[in-house]
Amino acid sequence: MNTSNTSAEYIKQEKFLVAVDCIIFGFDTESIKLLLFKRRVEPLKGSLSLIGSFIKNDLNLNDSAKQVLEESTGLKDIFLKELRTYSNIDRDPGNRVISVAHYALIRINELDIKNVEEYDAHWYDFNDIPDLIFDHKQMVEDAIYRLRDEARREPICFNLLPEEFTIPQLQSIYECFYQRNLDSRNFRKKILSFDILTKTDKKDKTASKKGAFLYVYDKEKFDSFIAKGNRFQL
Amino acid sequence: MNTSNTSAEYIKQEKFLVAVDCIIFGFDTESIKLLLFKRRVEPLKGSLSLIGSFIKNDLNLNDSAKQVLEESTGLKDIFLKELRTYSNIDRDPGNRVISVAHYALIRINELDIKNVEEYDAHWYDFNDIPDLIFDHKQMVEDAIYRLRDEARREPICFNLLPEEFTIPQLQSIYECFYQRNLDSRNFRKKILSFDILTKTDKKDKTASKKGAFLYVYDKEKFDSFIAKGNRFQL
Repeated sequence: MNTSNTSAEYIKQEKFLVAVDCIIFGFDTESIKLLLFKRRVEPLKGSLSLIGSFIKNDLNLNDSAKQVLEESTGLKDIFLKELRTYSNIDRDPGNRVISVAHYALIRINELDIKNVEEYDAHWYDFNDIPDLIFDHKQMVEDAIYRLRDEARREPICFNLLPEEFTIPQLQSIYECFYQRNLDSRNFRKKILSFDILTKTDKKDKTASKKGAFLYVYDKEKFDSFIAKGNRFQL
Repeated sequence: MNTSNTSAEYIKQEKFLVAVDCIIFGFDTESIKLLLFKRRVEPLKGSLSLIGSFIKNDLNLNDSAKQVLEESTGLKDIFLKELRTYSNIDRDPGNRVISVAHYALIRINELDIKNVEEYDAHWYDFNDIPDLIFDHKQMVEDAIYRLRDEARREPICFNLLPEEFTIPQLQSIYECFYQRNLDSRNFRKKILSFDILTKTDKKDKTASKKGAFLYVYDKEKFDSFIAKGNRFQL
């Protein structure tokens, strides 16, 4: 690091390795999954890990996380938020590393498979997360907790859905988030009562012969729904 | 830092200065205030700043923030939460510093004045925050936004009140958070309808001759209120 411009008080301070770790959730139109890969460096080489990286001097944390995501999935402009920092002094046996966890929501069908394969990354069930290195499992649990909370207040689930989707697909996302089955009739009634979806004249017939109508999410209507003091409680 | 135990992959990575900055809100039974101090080191020595510190190798971020708070206020065991990281590469002209902002809520009357004076810290009006160094004003604005959101879901305001308080004092806190006047009759009616406060037989007569009854917050009742699916919306 260039220290020529460093204030005197700063020079005597200790420095730290800083990493970003990305909790990448994806939806394949049926269920939510988590993207994990086998760690390539010691310690714990070969163990399951979140996808992360040490940060560099020319990027802020958010851009560092975006870079990790793009490298591992080929995707740009995806939903990405800081979760929180993990800084226990012995969290990484390789050395002291402060990690800033970020969570991302993506549509699995938009992934560049080549990138994912090059990264040797694989999808795991949202409701059955395997053991992970360091405190990564805690990061995932914290992210799920945050998502559950956010899903009640913001339309984040639409980051997981294709532009056109069925009501049962939307319901599957909420069932994953809340980890319980929801009554289909009540769910449909409630989500339509919010008046934030527009029905198309197309049908998805992959799940049943009769098919299910495809809907699109209307951001303008959602913003006006929230502006009226409503909450997105399903 | 001890590098004898450092993994080979880690050694070649860049290291960073990491700081915690504390956004300390206090309540003096009338209004919410923010604790600031004049910066003692270059760059921008003498300018108004949040209270912060570079972190050391033997503490995690939360404990570092607790230490800063204890040194500047003399208080232990206070409400303290991580807000988020601030990591733009040019945010601090002294050098690249990644700062993890934390917000705290305290009762001003419990402060150790000696500590605050030694720190040369002063209280500023919550609704009229002066210019601050670096991105500290942004940190304060982000903390206020977070507090407003949290106050709707959690009983955080009781961290600002003495054990026994009046309804008008509680109302003042909400008026600061929401930055608007609330109707006293409606506020009293609503907060009492939650059934989470216990009325004492004592009165506070500092604000009026007639006086206002003192109440205590009942954590057990609050927990059962939330468990029933209620929200703390005032």
